[in-house]
Amino acid sequence: MQKPVNNNFKESLLRTVESLRKSIRSGEMDDSTSGLVPGLVQANIVILPKIWAHDFLLFCQKNPIACPLIDVFDAGQFLLNSLGKDIDVRTDIPEYCVFVGGVKTEVKKDISDLWQDDFVVFALGCSFSFEYALQQAGLSIANLESNSNVSMYETNVPTKSVGVFQGNVVVSMRPFTPAQAIKAIQITSQFPLAHGAPIHIGKPEMIGINSLSNPSFGDSVEINEDHIPVFWGCGVTPQVVISNAKIPMFITHAPGKMLITDKLYSELR
Amino acid sequence: MQKPVNNNFKESLLRTVESLRKSIRSGEMDDSTSGLVPGLVQANIVILPKIWAHDFLLFCQKNPIACPLIDVFDAGQFLLNSLGKDIDVRTDIPEYCVFVGGVKTEVKKDISDLWQDDFVVFALGCSFSFEYALQQAGLSIANLESNSNVSMYETNVPTKSVGVFQGNVVVSMRPFTPAQAIKAIQITSQFPLAHGAPIHIGKPEMIGINSLSNPSFGDSVEINEDHIPVFWGCGVTPQVVISNAKIPMFITHAPGKMLITDKLYSELR
Repeated sequence: MQKPVNNNFKESLLRTVESLRKSIRSGEMDDSTSGLVPGLVQANIVILPKIWAHDFLLFCQKNPIACPLIDVFDAGQFLLNSLGKDIDVRTDIPEYCVFVGGVKTEVKKDISDLWQDDFVVFALGCSFSFEYALQQAGLSIANLESNSNVSMYETNVPTKSVGVFQGNVVVSMRPFTPAQAIKAIQITSQFPLAHGAPIHIGKPEMIGINSLSNPSFGDSVEINEDHIPVFWGCGVTPQVVISNAKIPMFITHAPGKMLITDKLYSELR
Repeated sequence: MQKPVNNNFKESLLRTVESLRKSIRSGEMDDSTSGLVPGLVQANIVILPKIWAHDFLLFCQKNPIACPLIDVFDAGQFLLNSLGKDIDVRTDIPEYCVFVGGVKTEVKKDISDLWQDDFVVFALGCSFSFEYALQQAGLSIANLESNSNVSMYETNVPTKSVGVFQGNVVVSMRPFTPAQAIKAIQITSQFPLAHGAPIHIGKPEMIGINSLSNPSFGDSVEINEDHIPVFWGCGVTPQVVISNAKIPMFITHAPGKMLITDKLYSELR
């Protein structure tokens, strides 16, 4: 009898992401990427004209919790080779938001027709990248259990402004029991490029969140009486901050619908 | 002009503890040791007859959060050389509790007259040892600010029982803002021999604490509305557990009045 082949962990992830990427590229898959290909890094994407790139780069540098920078690409570069084989940022995200003059004007599955030679792509870390580590520690993630998008909220916590870029931090929220929350803090502290440790626990009103059941983005999840909300910095922050700046045009991923890369977290640095 | 001598950090701590130990030994100082000689490890002390030592050692091994074992000494050994020069466990703790048949019968400043040749001394880590690290991170510790003993509570969280030793975990509590609590979890995770990370945050009723203002041991502290209680395992746990066992006699430090050693935390392992 032949023994089953001992598949390499990463190779099996790459096979999964390859077929998933095809169905995203074709427009078939346009859902939240939370929980997909656990183990591979997911990224928030910001695309803006080169004229704003320096200030936004500086903004990320000054706000690493909300905007942990994974990579920045050359003007006009849409193939993100450093993040994965054949990744085309114009087609390989399930859904994009297009902002004109600071207002979201369109949600699209493909931005090839909007591409400009002066576009600079920023890839920012995403908390979906540490969900796998939380699950491996035995923690159950509410929005994955209910098969929905993570809850995200605008807060009253200011970012450090740079030039035209200013605004408040957006957070993602996952409810846990107190003991699980402590574990989640310990674990996510090890993932600085995926927003790192939470910025807040419990008491949502302290960061300007009045109703947990009405997230600004994503879906609401039920919070058990024995659970407390745990809040992480979120890569939707740039969407708010760049909208505030009312620059003529920029494009992002749609909240919760990320770029899935070919990289393990350990390969980022 | 002569430059000031660049004093070695540890040497200066040793000078401080030497004079403090003298005033403890003389009976002059019988107060809580919280905040004293920040940087030096403080220890919970349990002294019991050798016949119970194996089971209690096993109890510590199975309950490292409540009973992080720093050292165990030979039967009859009262000079704790491994913890510091000239430390005599019979005189060098500000206050002792003497338990007979499971009942606290006496509080004393010196137990020389009670010493038995079959006594085995257990030194367990204490959360006072990480308070310095919290302060260095800019966290303010409520009971130190109010110059009082830390609040300690019996919980409904069971320990893992061994032989006659069974009972619930005792916790110490420090209130922090949510952001400070996250930092405190990160920092204290680095101090496993001082109880490590908290075992609980917020929601005291979940671990059987009905009134924060009525601690089982120590003093109560005011809790600001924007603060949440953070609970760590506490070395008073053995006092409850060994009392439950109703062994003929054992001796401990009085809650909050610890043995101050000559050791930096980094020297423990």
